[in-house]
Order: sequence, then C-alpha cells, then structure tokens
Amino acid sequence: MQILVVNPNTTASMTDTIAAAARSVAGTRTEIVAVTSSMGPVSIEGYYDEALAVPGLLVEIAAGERAGAQAAIIACFDDTGLDAARAMANIPVVGICEAALGMASFIAQRFTVVTTTQRSWVPVEALVQRYGMAGRARVRAADIPVLALEDPASGAAEKLRGEIARALDEDRAEAIVLGCAGMADLAAELQRAFGVPVIDGVGAAVKQAEALIALGLSTSKRGAYATPLAKPYRGALESFAPGAVAAE
Amino acid sequence: MQILVVNPNTTASMTDTIAAAARSVAGTRTEIVAVTSSMGPVSIEGYYDEALAVPGLLVEIAAGERAGAQAAIIACFDDTGLDAARAMANIPVVGICEAALGMASFIAQRFTVVTTTQRSWVPVEALVQRYGMAGRARVRAADIPVLALEDPASGAAEKLRGEIARALDEDRAEAIVLGCAGMADLAAELQRAFGVPVIDGVGAAVKQAEALIALGLSTSKRGAYATPLAKPYRGALESFAPGAVAAE
Amino acid sequence: MQILVVNPNTTASMTDTIAAAARSVAGTRTEIVAVTSSMGPVSIEGYYDEALAVPGLLVEIAAGERAGAQAAIIACFDDTGLDAARAMANIPVVGICEAALGMASFIAQRFTVVTTTQRSWVPVEALVQRYGMAGRARVRAADIPVLALEDPASGAAEKLRGEIARALDEDRAEAIVLGCAGMADLAAELQRAFGVPVIDGVGAAVKQAEALIALGLSTSKRGAYATPLAKPYRGALESFAPGAVAAE
Amino acid sequence: MQILVVNPNTTASMTDTIAAAARSVAGTRTEIVAVTSSMGPVSIEGYYDEALAVPGLLVEIAAGERAGAQAAIIACFDDTGLDAARAMANIPVVGICEAALGMASFIAQRFTVVTTTQRSWVPVEALVQRYGMAGRARVRAADIPVLALEDPASGAAEKLRGEIARALDEDRAEAIVLGCAGMADLAAELQRAFGVPVIDGVGAAVKQAEALIALGLSTSKRGAYATPLAKPYRGALESFAPGAVAAE
Amino acid sequence: MQILVVNPNTTASMTDTIAAAARSVAGTRTEIVAVTSSMGPVSIEGYYDEALAVPGLLVEIAAGERAGAQAAIIACFDDTGLDAARAMANIPVVGICEAALGMASFIAQRFTVVTTTQRSWVPVEALVQRYGMAGRARVRAADIPVLALEDPASGAAEKLRGEIARALDEDRAEAIVLGCAGMADLAAELQRAFGVPVIDGVGAAVKQAEALIALGLSTSKRGAYATPLAKPYRGALESFAPGAVAAE
Amino acid sequence: MQILVVNPNTTASMTDTIAAAARSVAGTRTEIVAVTSSMGPVSIEGYYDEALAVPGLLVEIAAGERAGAQAAIIACFDDTGLDAARAMANIPVVGICEAALGMASFIAQRFTVVTTTQRSWVPVEALVQRYGMAGRARVRAADIPVLALEDPASGAAEKLRGEIARALDEDRAEAIVLGCAGMADLAAELQRAFGVPVIDGVGAAVKQAEALIALGLSTSKRGAYATPLAKPYRGALESFAPGAVAAE
Repeated sequence: MQILVVNPNTTASMTDTIAAAARSVAGTRTEIVAVTSSMGPVSIEGYYDEALAVPGLLVEIAAGERAGAQAAIIACFDDTGLDAARAMANIPVVGICEAALGMASFIAQRFTVVTTTQRSWVPVEALVQRYGMAGRARVRAADIPVLALEDPASGAAEKLRGEIARALDEDRAEAIVLGCAGMADLAAELQRAFGVPVIDGVGAAVKQAEALIALGLSTSKRGAYATPLAKPYRGALESFAPGAVAAE
Repeated sequence: MQILVVNPNTTASMTDTIAAAARSVAGTRTEIVAVTSSMGPVSIEGYYDEALAVPGLLVEIAAGERAGAQAAIIACFDDTGLDAARAMANIPVVGICEAALGMASFIAQRFTVVTTTQRSWVPVEALVQRYGMAGRARVRAADIPVLALEDPASGAAEKLRGEIARALDEDRAEAIVLGCAGMADLAAELQRAFGVPVIDGVGAAVKQAEALIALGLSTSKRGAYATPLAKPYRGALESFAPGAVAAE
Repeated sequence: MQILVVNPNTTASMTDTIAAAARSVAGTRTEIVAVTSSMGPVSIEGYYDEALAVPGLLVEIAAGERAGAQAAIIACFDDTGLDAARAMANIPVVGICEAALGMASFIAQRFTVVTTTQRSWVPVEALVQRYGMAGRARVRAADIPVLALEDPASGAAEKLRGEIARALDEDRAEAIVLGCAGMADLAAELQRAFGVPVIDGVGAAVKQAEALIALGLSTSKRGAYATPLAKPYRGALESFAPGAVAAE
Repeated sequence: MQILVVNPNTTASMTDTIAAAARSVAGTRTEIVAVTSSMGPVSIEGYYDEALAVPGLLVEIAAGERAGAQAAIIACFDDTGLDAARAMANIPVVGICEAALGMASFIAQRFTVVTTTQRSWVPVEALVQRYGMAGRARVRAADIPVLALEDPASGAAEKLRGEIARALDEDRAEAIVLGCAGMADLAAELQRAFGVPVIDGVGAAVKQAEALIALGLSTSKRGAYATPLAKPYRGALESFAPGAVAAE
Repeated sequence: MQILVVNPNTTASMTDTIAAAARSVAGTRTEIVAVTSSMGPVSIEGYYDEALAVPGLLVEIAAGERAGAQAAIIACFDDTGLDAARAMANIPVVGICEAALGMASFIAQRFTVVTTTQRSWVPVEALVQRYGMAGRARVRAADIPVLALEDPASGAAEKLRGEIARALDEDRAEAIVLGCAGMADLAAELQRAFGVPVIDGVGAAVKQAEALIALGLSTSKRGAYATPLAKPYRGALESFAPGAVAAE
Repeated sequence: MQILVVNPNTTASMTDTIAAAARSVAGTRTEIVAVTSSMGPVSIEGYYDEALAVPGLLVEIAAGERAGAQAAIIACFDDTGLDAARAMANIPVVGICEAALGMASFIAQRFTVVTTTQRSWVPVEALVQRYGMAGRARVRAADIPVLALEDPASGAAEKLRGEIARALDEDRAEAIVLGCAGMADLAAELQRAFGVPVIDGVGAAVKQAEALIALGLSTSKRGAYATPLAKPYRGALESFAPGAVAAE
C-alpha cells in the first residue's frame, strides 16, 4: 500500500516532520512517500499563499499517481487544492483538516482547533463550516508563524500550550485538534500534558487513506469530481491541460 | 488489535453477515469479535426498537471491554445507543452510520443513503443532520423489512437496486451509502453494477476503529462523555449502575 | 381529563415535587397521575443514565395508557425516551424540555436554559438545536447534582440563582427556562426575584398535554411514529415486544 | 379567564368562523371575546395587506387589554403585527401560526402547512424558518383567495383537499397544518377524512393563551419586547404614541 | 435618474443628515429627493415604532413613484416596511440595512453592526439572519437613543466610538457597519479614526438603487412581491386600498 | 474611474462579450479595462480548471492595480480566486457570482441560478451557501459547454431558455440569475422574453465596483484579507512572492 503525502509548501524540513508523523502511525504494509512541492510559498499562511500552492501540489499528486500511489494526502491544514486534486486524480485524496475533524467527531462532542496565524483563522472556520462541524467545533489562532514551529527557540510551543489551556477553560473543549501540519510531532506529548485527546491531521489522514484503499473506495467521477474535460491550457500552465497531466 | 462488533438486534444470522463484512476489510493484525445482543428486538426498525436495543448493547460492550477489546462498533445504522456507550466505555465506540457518512464525505460531494423502512427514514435523516451532512446527503427508504435482507427470495435486493437507480437519477447522487448493517455484503457488487462508490457502514466502522486505536485516541472523558457517576440503579436494570457495570 | 406524569428516575421524593408542580397549574377537570419509574437510575445525569431510564419509563407509559390516561408527560429535561414513547403509545406524549422551550418562545426572543450538571449541557444543547431554538436560546450548567435539588442544605438554590444572574448579565436573556424537573417548585419564586419570566417544564407540559386532549390531537401514526411492528423480543426485555406491551 | 381574539382583517363573517372555532375548544372558564378590526383590508393576502392591518390590530389589542383581557390572539396565519403587539401590550400575545406549528411539533416529525395564495407562500415559509421548523415543515399554497373560504360555492374546500392529498403523497407529511384563520372550521372534518392530525391555528392559540395565563407567564419586558418609549407620534397615527395608547 | 429617499420617522433634522449623506455619494446625474414621513413616531426604536412607521412610509413611496422616482430607499436600519413597499411599488425599493450588509460582504469576511438601543438589537440580528450574514456579522448596541445622534452634546459619538473599539477588540471585526440612518454623517471620520472600512447604509443604498436603475432591474412581480390584489380597505386606512394607492 | 475586468479563462472572444456587457452598464465616467488571462484553461468548467486559472488571474489583477485600476472584477461565475485576489490587492475585488446574487436579493425572494455544466453545479451551490442565499436560491445546470455559448449554432441558447422555463415552473423562481460570464449578452433579451428579472453577473459587478469606489471603501486589511507576508516563493511561481508581486 503506497500513500503519497504532499507537503504543499516548499520547506523540506517541514516535510520531514510530516513524514515522521505519517510513518509513526502507518500500517506495517503501508509505504509513505513524502514529497515537498517544488513550486510556491515556503509556508501557507492565508488565502494568497494557499492559492499559489495549488499548481505545485497538483504536479506532485499527478506524479505520485503515475508512480503508483494508491491514495494521496494534502498535508496543509487549509486543505489547499483539495477539490481540484480530487477532480484530477483517479486515486482518493484526503485533506488533513477534514481527516482531523472527522476523527475528532468520533471521540468528542465539542472540540477546538488551534491554528497558527490570524490569516488562517477565517479559512479554517470556513472549513469547519464546510465539513458540517460549525455547531461543535471552535477555532483559535495561537499567533504563531508557521515556520516558527520548526524552530525550538521561537517560543511557538509555549504559545500553543497557552492557547490549548484557554480552549479547555473557555470553550468547554473536550478535545483539541492541531491546526497545522507543522504541529504533527507535538500531538502525543500534548495529549499527555493536557489529559484530553489531541488530534494531528497528518496521522488522521494516513489512517483515512489506508481505510479508503482497504475498502476499495475512490473519488466518485460522477458530478462535482468528474475528470476534467480535455481542453487547451495556455501560457506557463500549458502542461496542466487535463490530457497533458495524465500523459505527462 | 481486537475490535468488538456488536449486532444490537438479536438475530444471529445478521451477525454472521456483519462479521464477514468486518473481517473482509480488517487489517491482518485485527481480530474481529462479533457478538449478537441477547436482549431486545430481532430487528431494529424505528425509535421503539432502537431504544429497547440499548441495554443489551451496553451489556455486550461492557463485556467486550473487560475481555480486552480496544474499540467497539455498533452495527446498526441508527447508531443505536452510541452516546450512552461512549459515556460508559473507556474504549472508543464507533457507529456505522457516522463511519459511513464520514467515509462518503472523502469521495463525493453529494450522496444518498438508502435505508430500509419508512420508520427508519426520519431517524436516519436526524443522524445526517447531527453529523453535519444535511447539505450534501439525502435519505431514501427502499421499503424493505430489515430481516428480508437475510432472505434471498424476498425481493429485497431488487428493491434496493431500484431505489439506488432512482437516487442516481433524481438526487444527483455521486455515491451511495447503504443504510442498514444487513446490507453489508452487497456493497462491492452494487459498486460494480452502478459504477459509483457504494459505502457499507460496517466496513467503514472497522477502519475507523482501527484508525482510532493506531492513533492512540479514545473518547474524551471531559464533558458530554464523562464517566457516569456512581449511583444506585433500581429494579431490573440494577446491574447497570455505573459501578456495577465496571466491576460486573 | 387524566394526564400521566412519569418521573423517569427512581427517586420518589422528586416525583412528589413534580406532582405538586403539575397539580398547581392543572385545570380543574384534570387529574394528574404521577408515577415514579421502578427501574433505572435514581437521577438522570448524562447520556448513560438517560438511556437506561427508558425501559422503566416505557413500562409506566404503557401501564398509564391502559389505565385510562389521555396524555403522558416525561418529567425529565432530557426528554428521555420521547421518540420511543411516541411510537409506542396511542396517546400524545409531551417532553418537559420541548414544552418549556415552546412556552418560552411565546414570551421572549432570547432566553437561557439553566440546567444542572456538565454532563447534561451537551444533551440539552442538542435538544435546543432539535427544537429549532439554536438561534435564540443558550444553555448553562449550574454545576448542581440533580439530587442536591432535593436537599435544602446543599446550596443548590444559591448556585442556581448565581447562574441565572449570570445569564441575565452575559446572555441578554429575556427569560429563564429551568433545565431540570427537580427545579419545578422554584419557578414562581425565581420569577418574582429576578423580574423576568421563569419557565418550569413540568407546568408547561401539563398545559400542552391538556391542549392536545382538548384539541383532539394525538401522535400521528404515519411515518416516524408509526406503531412498532409486531416482532419477537428476546431476553430480559421480552415483555417489551410491541404486541406484548399493548396486551400486557 | 378572558381571551381576546382579534381578526385583523375587516371581514366580520370571518370573525364569526374564528370565534366559533375558538369557543369550541376553550376551557369552561374561558371567555372568548372576538373582535373584528375596523381599519384595514378585508382579507390579508401578502405583505402589503399584512402591514396595513397592523394599526387596526393594535387598536383592538390595546382596547381589549384595557377591557380586562388576560391574553390576546392574532387570528391571521401571517402572525401579522405580532412583535409590535408584544412590545405594546402587557398581556401575552399569541399568533396562530406559531401556535399551530408548536402544536404540530408535539405530534409529528414532518408536516405540511397548506396556505391560501401564492402571495402568502413566502411569508409563511419565512415564519416556518423563524419558528425553527425549516427542517421539518413544508409549505404549500392551495391557490384559494382568502374570502373564497367563506363561500361554499367557491370550490375552495375541494382545492384544499386536493392540496392536502398531494402533501401526504409527495411530502411524507405526517400531519397537516391549516394555513389560514378562515379554515378554522374545517380541521375536525379533514382530520377524519385523511386519517392524520389536522391542526387549526385558532384552536391551538386559544389553548396556548390559556396555558400562559394559567402558568402566570407574560411577555418579557426585558430586551426586544420592552415597553415602547414615550415619544411624540405625528399625523394620523398620533393616537398611537406609546403614552397615548396606554391612556387612550 | 431620480431616487427617492424616505426617512420613515417624522424628524426632519434627521432627514437633512440622511439627504446630505445620500447626495455626497450620488452620481452626477442622480437627483436625490429626500422626504420626511408625516405620520408616525419621531424616531424608530424597536418593533412598535417600526410597525407604526409603515403607513406613512408607504404614502411617501407611492407619492414619490407617481412623481417620477425610479427607485426608493427606506432610510431606517430596521428596513421598516420593506416587503410591503416592494409589493406595492413598481420601482425597486432598497433598505439601508440590506444595502450596508451587502456592501460589507464585498470587503470583509467578519464584521460588526453597531446599532443604537437594546430595543433594536434583536430586530437587527433578525435582519442579519434574513440576509444570510449570521455566520459572519455580529450586532452590538451602543445604548444611544436615536435622537441623541442629532445632539452633539449628548455624548452619543463617544459611546459609538467606544462600542466600535470593543467590536474590533472582541469580535475580530474586519469592518464596521453603522446601524442607524442617523449615523450617516459619521462614516468617513470613523473610517479614518479606526483604520478599517466603516459602512453607512444610506450611501450604500444610494449606490444600489443607482445600480438597479442602470441595470434595468426592478422588483419581480411574480410570487412574494406580486402587486396587491384590488380589494376594499376599511376605516382610517381606506385610502391604502391597492387600487386607491395607485390612483391616489 | 477605471475598473479592471479580468476574464480568467484564456478565450479572448469571451472577453469581448464580457467587455461589451460591462461597458453597456458602466457609468459615463467609468473606463472599463477588459483583459484576458494569458495563462490557464480556455474555459473554466469545474474545480480543476478553476484552480489553474488563479495564477493568471492574479497576474492580471496585480498588473491592473499598478496601471491605475481602482477596482477589479473577476468575470467567472465560480468567483475563481476571489479570496486570494482580495488578500493580494489594495483595490476592492468583486466576483460576478456574489454581485449577481446580491443584486437578485434586492428584487426577488426566491430565484434560480442557471449555470452551464454538471461540473459547475456543486461549486455554484457552494457559493450560494457561502453568500447566505441557500434558503432562497436554487441552482440548475443547463448542460451547455461554456464555449458553446460563443457559437450561435450550438443550440446553447435554446437549452438555456428551456432550463429557465423549468426554473419558473418547478422552482417558484421570481427571478433568474445567469450563471456564466459567457451569458452576459443574453440578459436583456431573456428578461423581455420571460417577463421576470434576469440578472447578469458582469453588469452587476460593474455597478458594485463603481459603488465601492464612490463610497471610498476597499478590502479590509485586518484579518482574513491582510496583505500576504513577505516570504520566498520557489520554482515557477517565484514571481508571485508577495514582495515580488507588489514591485513586479
């Protein structure tokens, strides 16, 4: 079972964190192929970065599918490019936000997502709404730049702990969802420290991808995710023309 | 990894169907322990049957947890007794409706649940609402008595196919969710026949239970699912007193 | 006009409080028959207690209907077993939560439900959602064990007053709904003390039950509340088989 | 117990129908005072008629309160002027739409409101939304002019029956709500004919008004329904100035 | 292009403020005709004032349409009488609340409406809900009587600034909507002071009215806003009979 | 007043249609600058095309802002890249879907969007939900390839008319919104033919953009649309780094 995990930002050290988290929960017969996008922002903080991360992400998913991956994971909590990837790919594609929220819903009635920056707050709230969790999940931003999570001296971990403490105190949260792929290595320790379930989206997405493969389920090609029609693409993105991508 | 699958109705032949479906997707290191409730209705069709199936279900989950199960599955599409079971147990508990809807949400934007009888229609619609899928999932009843699914001569399979065809035609469904544990053996064949993903909740729940175990996640004991307080229980249900259950 | 009021917990002193509240508002031609369940928890605090209170509750409603009651009231603010009771009975069944919320909606645009324990908070919020009041009603828990309401020395009344004061101050509440049958005797006094309407669900349910009888309305037997199908019930709950219950 | 029932249109024969329906369900100690507005349209069909019916309605409610009514009912299914009346009056005010929907919610999970004209369809849908019933109630218009209900030769009753039949067939309705005060005399007969509960708002509102009086509940004067501030009113409506109304 | 702006309260000095705000943003070819209602309350604070302002408002819109206005604006943030006016008029009618919320939605994801009194809070929240902004807009009341806005010595401006500051601090507001026509002259200055967009409904409505005229769009006369049926009106409101209004 | 209109697909003939529609409603002092994206798909049909159209769109908006545009319009009914563009630009950005829905809401209570292909159906429904119109707007797909709209011999116009007829008949639509920029030239004629308002998003967006400029309003830079942080972008999209874009 081969699962592709794409870090849609271009920071390879974050891919390492993500890959380690993915491998730590993967089944014994699962191979995790973790790749870093080669095109786009070094971190995804807000709508602009998110939109510009998509082409690089799609390149990696198309390449991964050709190389034999049976499912793909988008390892950014904004679920960047998820719909486009699902339409393009013939393998199932899982976002770490949807996977994390889904997993939380099995073990808690009320929970809080702690994300990084103010710029990501509204996009994550929109995802909570999209995934049908608006009545039970709240969102908080810990005011941490994404890449600060890679730097132990940044104080990011302390800020994160402070925000989790406030979520438990003020939100009646029964569980915590970590709202950034860069926090993937912290879940176990935070769960021990706070005594409530702490959910990391990368791990959750690996298990969902394994589940889809085991169940023989893939993205429906009827309706919203139908395969893109063959048509010309102009300019720098010519190679993304639906036919071109498949054959690339 | 030991996963308890409880059939909360008292029909052992349906447990066999459920167990086979569970085992067919379980991981190589997962042991499926399938049990039939010994107390309650022979099939669960509507609110009354549902409520009366709960005590027998809780007995089995408590027994299963003591016997070493690491997660439990409630194999009735009404997610009968799910909240009570979560509060009681220290292992995670998964309902097959929530598992199926969650799985469908990864592969389709719009889908239809095809359940059995008119009596189950509104309860299943309420679950769709509860799990945040009201904007994307519709519910249909194929007018099949639950136990007819056990009888090849009943015409149940034809009715089910007819209702799926109508769902694809009238609902713009991109995928189908089978709305009864007794349909668990039909998913693969229907998926081939209709060319869209067909999701069985039993299989989906097995993978979610495996995921929760692998991720080290269990029901939060803070808030809604806090362990029941020790207190006297009177009459025929005395043995369900929280302390009694744990020690039983 | 005979109205059955079932206290679904097994504490007879609470039934006395409930019966007194019911009789104090009943019409001159209404006979209140108040019974205590003989099977289940001494108080209902959370999902587990709630589920286990249902069989005893159903026994009392079936018996009451046979004895001539024209309507039944479930005197627990969780509306425990309401749907099952409606499907089983041929007389209308009213929950005190739905009755209280409905009554509040005639006299206030925004109101707050003050319930007992943290365990009941989420279940009551789910009822507020179910009854269509999520946009106008908030829920608070006063952190009072249910049975403390029976004990004047417990400080429960003070906690309740403190929480009501906070609701008026922080929630812009225009009225207060008392979120436990055990508070039924406190409504009038609290209404005087705080100068806003204070609604007790037991009284509200009595008037709704009288209204349904006077209007010649009973539970629809078409759809969700259709009479349970005759079928075998196994084990300790055998006597609950639909036919058995009716004939019992 | 004196209950004022205001017909906010100026057609006295409809007031007779309404009064008879009100008296047929009122308690033995309830006096129904039914009045016809003396100012405004002869029937209320859509937003324009509705708005212009309000001043005449308020005159009658103010006069009724001074004359000793303990509660008031607005006998138009649009709940015309309900919020203004609640702010003005010191007695509780009940709308027949909210009363009917509330009553239906105790006996059916899914129901359909059958109203008169296309002009009333959207306003009634807005009320269904306001009262939190959007998930369970549908609205249909039988294409009947309101005053045709007063004329046996108009064919209105047949149109109404036809629309009810379609509601049962197409909407999975478990009960029917009659969406016009002018249909108040038809409920009992339609209930017999169709075998499902049929709810008339006039009768429902009488019982809700009796309930509020018996429970000692009246409109909260904190927040949205606070007594209007004393201030000048100019022109033809001078006599409506809050002080003037009270002293009138 | 002639646009009628109706101040539905009877305070001419407020009409002056409104007219100035309207003219300051109107196109060079737009003529603003600002009128004061001659019938009703001197200020609109809550449901009662709102309902009584409608007849005077309708008189002015009917007169304005006959005099050649191509669109009408209702300059009260409660959108008083909007639906009735739309049904009556053949020219488009715009409310300042809906215009302001719509404009805010183009430039901010989260915003706060700051209105005047507690009495207007719930009505404005209901409009936010009606216009589909409940997920992104919050409402606050600055506790300012409407006419205090006309009096520089009242301290109203300071209270307004204080509430805006709290909205930015506590609501994560990205923009502010001024929730009263009497604040129309303050928007530009407050925008400079707080560094976020501040939206006045009067200006917004003028541009929406110009847009509708330029696009050749007017109120649909199919469905909810169909022309009122010709019918008798009795008493003091006789002149409002649909035919009478048109011919008046 | 200079307004940039970006056609985010790469088909210049469609830009001509869009530009003509924009100019036909623009104010006398408005200059419409219409540009065709030079990078991406020739038509936008579904999520994949949509995502790949964003970089080319952002290039044009950045260039347009530098060249003096005071507002920008994204002329694709999917509101492709709207959030990213708002975060990037310092001028307001308007999507044609949000503009059209907003305009429809001023003149109709219920309306239907008629879009092109099945692939766009769900994305447009998601926009209807996002913009708060789910309760009043329905979506239909006329099964027309986008570029067929450019070809009179394609039969596209007939299909569109047929779908509009069905919307009026089956949806109780009071107005029609054209769900594709390529239909911009058809609105006036369809409005005449069907006798209900027909709204084209391009025209609507031009008037909204003029309104925002006239009112001195631009995108809030607080919160969700804060200016992207300066950071490295790697690979083919390097030139999109926030700093680079501004200085480009």
